[in-house]
Amino acid sequence: MILDRIESPNDLKELNISELNELKKEIRKLILTKVSKVGGHLGSNLGSVELEIALHYVFNSPKDKIVFDVSHQSYTHKILTGRKEAFLNKKAYDDVTGFTSKTESPHDMFTVGHTSTSISLAYGLAKARDIKGTKENIIAFIGDGSMSGGEAFEGLNNAGTLKSNFIVIFNDNQMSIANNSGSLYDNLEELRNTKGKSKNNFFKALGFDYKYISKGNDVKTLIEVLEEVKDIDHPIVLHINTIKGLGYKKAVEAKDQYHSRMPFNLKTGESTLPSKPSYSGLIRNYLIKNLDTHKDLALLSAAAPFFYGNKETIEKYKDRILDLGIAEESLFSVSAGLSHEGLRPVVSIFSFFIGRAIDQLLIDASLNKENTLILIHGGTFSEDAKGSTKSATHHGIYDSALISNIPGLLYIHPTNEKELFKIMDDYIKGRLNGVIALRVPTVRVETVNETLSKNYLDIKSKVINNGSKVALLGLGNFYFKAEEVYYALEKLGIKATLINPLFSNVLDIELLESLKANHSLVVTFEDEILDGGFGEKVARFYSSSDMKVINYGFKKDFYDYVSIEDTLKDNHLTLKQVVKDIKQTLK
Amino acid sequence: MILDRIESPNDLKELNISELNELKKEIRKLILTKVSKVGGHLGSNLGSVELEIALHYVFNSPKDKIVFDVSHQSYTHKILTGRKEAFLNKKAYDDVTGFTSKTESPHDMFTVGHTSTSISLAYGLAKARDIKGTKENIIAFIGDGSMSGGEAFEGLNNAGTLKSNFIVIFNDNQMSIANNSGSLYDNLEELRNTKGKSKNNFFKALGFDYKYISKGNDVKTLIEVLEEVKDIDHPIVLHINTIKGLGYKKAVEAKDQYHSRMPFNLKTGESTLPSKPSYSGLIRNYLIKNLDTHKDLALLSAAAPFFYGNKETIEKYKDRILDLGIAEESLFSVSAGLSHEGLRPVVSIFSFFIGRAIDQLLIDASLNKENTLILIHGGTFSEDAKGSTKSATHHGIYDSALISNIPGLLYIHPTNEKELFKIMDDYIKGRLNGVIALRVPTVRVETVNETLSKNYLDIKSKVINNGSKVALLGLGNFYFKAEEVYYALEKLGIKATLINPLFSNVLDIELLESLKANHSLVVTFEDEILDGGFGEKVARFYSSSDMKVINYGFKKDFYDYVSIEDTLKDNHLTLKQVVKDIKQTLK
Repeated sequence: MILDRIESPNDLKELNISELNELKKEIRKLILTKVSKVGGHLGSNLGSVELEIALHYVFNSPKDKIVFDVSHQSYTHKILTGRKEAFLNKKAYDDVTGFTSKTESPHDMFTVGHTSTSISLAYGLAKARDIKGTKENIIAFIGDGSMSGGEAFEGLNNAGTLKSNFIVIFNDNQMSIANNSGSLYDNLEELRNTKGKSKNNFFKALGFDYKYISKGNDVKTLIEVLEEVKDIDHPIVLHINTIKGLGYKKAVEAKDQYHSRMPFNLKTGESTLPSKPSYSGLIRNYLIKNLDTHKDLALLSAAAPFFYGNKETIEKYKDRILDLGIAEESLFSVSAGLSHEGLRPVVSIFSFFIGRAIDQLLIDASLNKENTLILIHGGTFSEDAKGSTKSATHHGIYDSALISNIPGLLYIHPTNEKELFKIMDDYIKGRLNGVIALRVPTVRVETVNETLSKNYLDIKSKVINNGSKVALLGLGNFYFKAEEVYYALEKLGIKATLINPLFSNVLDIELLESLKANHSLVVTFEDEILDGGFGEKVARFYSSSDMKVINYGFKKDFYDYVSIEDTLKDNHLTLKQVVKDIKQTLK
Repeated sequence: MILDRIESPNDLKELNISELNELKKEIRKLILTKVSKVGGHLGSNLGSVELEIALHYVFNSPKDKIVFDVSHQSYTHKILTGRKEAFLNKKAYDDVTGFTSKTESPHDMFTVGHTSTSISLAYGLAKARDIKGTKENIIAFIGDGSMSGGEAFEGLNNAGTLKSNFIVIFNDNQMSIANNSGSLYDNLEELRNTKGKSKNNFFKALGFDYKYISKGNDVKTLIEVLEEVKDIDHPIVLHINTIKGLGYKKAVEAKDQYHSRMPFNLKTGESTLPSKPSYSGLIRNYLIKNLDTHKDLALLSAAAPFFYGNKETIEKYKDRILDLGIAEESLFSVSAGLSHEGLRPVVSIFSFFIGRAIDQLLIDASLNKENTLILIHGGTFSEDAKGSTKSATHHGIYDSALISNIPGLLYIHPTNEKELFKIMDDYIKGRLNGVIALRVPTVRVETVNETLSKNYLDIKSKVINNGSKVALLGLGNFYFKAEEVYYALEKLGIKATLINPLFSNVLDIELLESLKANHSLVVTFEDEILDGGFGEKVARFYSSSDMKVINYGFKKDFYDYVSIEDTLKDNHLTLKQVVKDIKQTLK
């Protein structure tokens, strides 16, 4: 194997073109094998093998600095920079994360995971270089999808003014996580079609030198081009045409399905994990059904139309399924515009990306009282953090801290199907208005007999079981944790009160007040960090009374590829720990 | 007066060109008079009088919909849409806000105040129109400064794909709140110099039809152009060259100083308010002094270089004073890049704009542990909300709710000059590392004898006076409120403990624990909304103990041009109310 000879990028420079071409096959095979076994990002990694080989052949990392955007396409880079074992050896698969990681290698400039930041990060590196008077190459490696995010433009706008070296590797594989949205992509198509010669050129308009490379999967071509721009004294965009999924036919043919995969069978392409019902699936069906019956319903996403269906569905309803590209800022402004004209927009977004849209939620949506139903997906620590596979950039535990304190926004945390669809139904039918965030439950998809009372909109929590002494308030996913505790206490002869609070940022004052009569302890449970969340509001409510309160949730911290078991224990969240605490406090 | 005949935009359509030219003079005079008397945005309003007259002459508002970006340039629009009294009559000056306001007029589409949202908002209106099948004109009115914000690009990228009417009025007065930053502005200059004929064209590259109008302060020209594009069936950018400050020589000559003004003398241009020392001024001097002695210091802002000095200072230190344009997202990524290379970046930002940068603070700065000192300016309700002049979009009371729960970020609230500069000094000299937010105090600029102990970095609050029974924790600006209460209690024979907690998001556990010995009540004070803030953390800390806690701060709400007195009362924040509460709880 050629790879046997590669311990660092320097070793690469000893190889000739035919060896490099051999190497690329070896790497592609490793990526395919690992991703099919443990899951990961596939298409973008397969498409950029040659590009990353050529970059490390020509430049001198880490002196020359490469900043990967999102960095889910950095597998080849990892293999070439001393981390091949994590791709060669099954037992070492978990030794590297799926993104660049500062703590993993000096070749990784930043720990990344969210999009459209690379040009700004690299601009910072370039300004530092110029201030210090050194001479290294600064390279931002960004895909066409990420270019739709506003911060990418902000980065270009500043980097375009540099009078020094700055290289944007623009990896155009004609796909984002989904199909690209926006007029920028028409310009990119025009540039591809004209081999870079169209007079309409987004990058040149922003002051960049520009070069188009159509053969972006040819190592020799890439090396020649990169040699040419190495040590260049001004900002340049290399617009490089690559094939997403190259080397695996199915991934080339269905680029969206192979953007990232859970473990799958390489021969058939089928998932090797048992499929299970998910709320996402139920919501998708529900929303599409309602598009037919409610002509004022519009469904929005930022590069995530998959929340609403497959290509055919999106095409069928394209007037009212709006994908804006990776443009979370724009998302809530556009939604406000639709609401202003009487439409009822639904916005779907992952918990861990909501930080991109806070000001627009505050001003355009909330201050303007524009109807907006926000479906927060992946808002959980517990369920999604299987084994030790979850990056700190993708934990859904900060959303309440970031949005629940926005005035005018009502944050609802249903615990089951009936509650979920009652709330969505009320919004779609105009009974529930304003800015409503709904944390999509991630555990136990089941239909229960419980339904919401008609007056739940008056901020009524649901008392599931009436007891005394101790009241358990289990929010959203952690309702089930409260339920477990309830049964454990019952076994100990303590008949607790079990409550599904439903709302996290507005308290059911009447209920909380009434608990004072025959309870001395209120215990809250939430599937997120405690700081800024539900439990603290309950603690504040009771703070000048005799009621004792204990809050369970996660400590404010980053949890990068940690084990869920250890984390639960560290946060005093195991059943045993909770029951012990309660017994102690009741004494 | 021509204006006597204008009650609504319809009346405008009865006038001939010479009358319109007379009208523009009348309006300009009104704007100058009002702003000089009560303060407001001046330059952009003076520069866009003709444009807004022409828009209302040609289009039929509110059927045709005009969305103003930021909307501080909407004074002429307000005068023409039934609100002239608020400019003619001193007593009615306060009847309108300084921004468009949904509750004020059906001609105002949204309540705005932050930048770069207009194209996205208008795109939402346009999609709604197309879904409903109506035919009105949709107009986004945006200045050149706002175009540097990422969301403006996100809006263009989507609006550029429309197959229906969409008009961007691009008001290019060659100035933002400060000088514009970025390569986009080189392109705009090229477009102005070539009368729109340069083949490099940012807007065309994004799929827009395009027209350049050099005589942007000529009513007749503007009417002709607008008549031409009215009811156009595709997206177009009208690039309109206007003169910021036109009609007031001083404002044309010093565009930055007359962007917005507090009351001033029209003859001399001098402020009519007594000047008073401000922390901003002290900080500016301190930072500039340190630029000379600390070559690793870099100062960043998003279109607010005035935090660091005047034009000459910025020019002198241009390698290390980086203004990124209105690009708050990029701000913390660029800062992370600088830190990665060993520089010590300082980022200055207004409290009310921090919501634009949450994800970058979370990921690029905090997760990556990149040194960042964030100076949060205007973080207050009390002091800046003089009389009834403060827009809900510009209250500095949400920053703690939005950033203090970010892991890894330490939020410090100094109360005086010594504390402030000790913290800044420690950061600049490398004794204080990581992501540090510092809430710049806004009250009582004074030097005190108190200095921070050397070990304050171990999260040590400062006990100012040792007492018993009740402990008063006054955070930042509200330290002085706690002090007032302290003296009031003293008069009643209660010797309280007075504490300056200094840190809002990490508690001095040892101190709080020690208070249990001889205190039964802890009272917190913070100059911001209570939800997600400091007080709730203290309440959580004591929640399972016998300590009672009362939190003082502001209810989570929007406060649009409210009176400070009423607001303090509504929030139980007057001295009388607080003392009464404490006495009652101590019983």
